[in-house]
Amino acid sequence: METIGWLAAVLTTFSFVPQAIKVIRTKETSSISLWMYSIFTLGISFWLVYGLMIGSVQMTLANLVTLVLAIIILRAKIKNG
Amino acid sequence: METIGWLAAVLTTFSFVPQAIKVIRTKETSSISLWMYSIFTLGISFWLVYGLMIGSVQMTLANLVTLVLAIIILRAKIKNG
Repeated sequence: METIGWLAAVLTTFSFVPQAIKVIRTKETSSISLWMYSIFTLGISFWLVYGLMIGSVQMTLANLVTLVLAIIILRAKIKNG
Repeated sequence: METIGWLAAVLTTFSFVPQAIKVIRTKETSSISLWMYSIFTLGISFWLVYGLMIGSVQMTLANLVTLVLAIIILRAKIKNG
């Protein structure tokens, strides 16, 4: 069961890597939703706070990585439209 | 603390709604990463299984909603390129 949880965490966290690479490389973000990444970044910030509050190292680390990736994508969207 | 967790869950789950609406409306998915949504959909499927296994109704429901939204975006990406 723990393996399923770890697989889930690793896959959802690192799924944002190819999207971040794509927007950095192409500077093309027209079909990406500004609303999605605004709300998502806020949500992940809350997950990070929650992870810290419950003292979960895994949760804190996973959400820290996701937050950095989400900010890269959000920043590119704001910059390139 | 529970409120932070709930806020985080609601925000990250529903952040995918504007992206799903955007791809349905515009049929434009060129800057969306196929890799991201392929890996993310798989990851959310594992979170759904994990939620069911640990018997968490909130986790199961949140991941079910996210899975449906992720599949809508992934399907549009595969169809429109």
